[in-house]
Amino acid sequence: MTMKTQIAIVGGTHGNEVTGVRLIERLRANPQIVERETLSTQLVIGNPVAVQQCVRYVDEDLNRGFAIAELNREPAATREAQRAHELNNLLGPKLNKPKTDVLLDLHTTTADMGVTLIVYDNPFNLGIAGYIQKQITDVSIYISDKKYEDTIGLQSIAPCSMLVEIGPIAPGVLRHDIFEQMDEVVRHALDYIDMVNRSPEKTFHGNLDVFQRGKLIEYPSDDDGNITAMIHKDLQNANYQELKPGSPLFITYNGDVILYDGEPGWYPVFINEAAYYEKTMALRLNRKLQIRV
Amino acid sequence: MTMKTQIAIVGGTHGNEVTGVRLIERLRANPQIVERETLSTQLVIGNPVAVQQCVRYVDEDLNRGFAIAELNREPAATREAQRAHELNNLLGPKLNKPKTDVLLDLHTTTADMGVTLIVYDNPFNLGIAGYIQKQITDVSIYISDKKYEDTIGLQSIAPCSMLVEIGPIAPGVLRHDIFEQMDEVVRHALDYIDMVNRSPEKTFHGNLDVFQRGKLIEYPSDDDGNITAMIHKDLQNANYQELKPGSPLFITYNGDVILYDGEPGWYPVFINEAAYYEKTMALRLNRKLQIRV
Repeated sequence: MTMKTQIAIVGGTHGNEVTGVRLIERLRANPQIVERETLSTQLVIGNPVAVQQCVRYVDEDLNRGFAIAELNREPAATREAQRAHELNNLLGPKLNKPKTDVLLDLHTTTADMGVTLIVYDNPFNLGIAGYIQKQITDVSIYISDKKYEDTIGLQSIAPCSMLVEIGPIAPGVLRHDIFEQMDEVVRHALDYIDMVNRSPEKTFHGNLDVFQRGKLIEYPSDDDGNITAMIHKDLQNANYQELKPGSPLFITYNGDVILYDGEPGWYPVFINEAAYYEKTMALRLNRKLQIRV
Repeated sequence: MTMKTQIAIVGGTHGNEVTGVRLIERLRANPQIVERETLSTQLVIGNPVAVQQCVRYVDEDLNRGFAIAELNREPAATREAQRAHELNNLLGPKLNKPKTDVLLDLHTTTADMGVTLIVYDNPFNLGIAGYIQKQITDVSIYISDKKYEDTIGLQSIAPCSMLVEIGPIAPGVLRHDIFEQMDEVVRHALDYIDMVNRSPEKTFHGNLDVFQRGKLIEYPSDDDGNITAMIHKDLQNANYQELKPGSPLFITYNGDVILYDGEPGWYPVFINEAAYYEKTMALRLNRKLQIRV
């Protein structure tokens, strides 16, 4: 008997991104949705305490807590660090024969990004993402600029993974259309993995347009670190569109427009994400690449 | 010398509705924007502790804390009750020769409601709202079904008032387009009041289409009070459109569509507002009326 591929689907890594939480609950109540011949799937709530309070996190961002040094630190310093240890035991351990082969982590954003599949650059991950992009219109693929083992997100505890990021939607809100999109992405991911387990010749091959994670753009701020401007309205919904030099980037609270004075060839994402204000992060700029899988 | 009309503009009555907070800060830094010959304007942050934490409230909803019985209760039971007492002293006292003639309270919503002006049904309030509706496209007027003195919102401490509600926008997020709309509404309101002080013959008269506050629709829930369905996607953005009998209202987490089986002639607002989940409130149904001002 062949070993089944061990899948973990996690919702509520951020406790106020309720779409993933409700989807996990639905899948637990209807396990036939995730049943596939060659897969064994665990359904997990990432941060139950934060989910219960409907906040992103209680002490610190769980999705930044999976550095090896943190996972080895005893005792855990915060409730999220404790939960990272638990998840590493349940689904990992990271880099040491983890129990999970493929991890799907379900997120939402206030940015107008549509369906974004965030993956580390390896052929298996890109195969899942490329397959889904062929099934659903308006899906963007966003790749890390690092190796998974060097990063600190929940994704990094499994050798293969995909973070599903859908928006725009407010924290704490459930929308039928976005719930359906997330459900559809999960089903296609499971279909694909099951299909290539049974028929390896059906592995996705092709050219993919991807966005590679680049540099941060911070909000303008004063000497005390207070943000002093907002995203210009022309940029608000322009994720994945090239930011042209000389185009409006910010407008200060006093009404002065600040233009983008950087180089061409950069594409913004996570424009005006609610959770990034506390880090004074306005958006991230990325390169657009075509890669062959 | 004629007495000036005493105006209070309040942002941050809900601490995570940051558009109003930033607008108050902007007006404080640029007081010439609110200067009018016949007006004296106070700029107030409604709930500074909640603003600082970027939450709707810390103990209870400040905007439900202005019942006379609560304002007279000593000592105040919560931080918001304490703040309601302070605001009543600063801007009221309610029903007892309040210092404020006209109160503007600045809010945002996750519901796709555009610019909504919420007023108690009196000719002065409706004049402001009617004037603004002529200046800006896509403004809806929403009237209470009660007298202001019998209600519990911040608006009820002044004899005339307007609550400005703009959406959709996520809590904690500032959007340039919505910031501009709020700024524009405030300027027009001040312009109008100043104009009619100087030229009473310019008082707004005309027919207005208004929506009158009606009944609540709650989410379906289980025996433990947990919500079991979401707003159907066909209804998500249909604020101010008549809810036809037999049209989809909810879809359960398990995928069953629930149809509206009530009467015709009702118009929903506050569809899928994030802050109302805790009250299991899905939307409010209203009557559409034409009134002569």
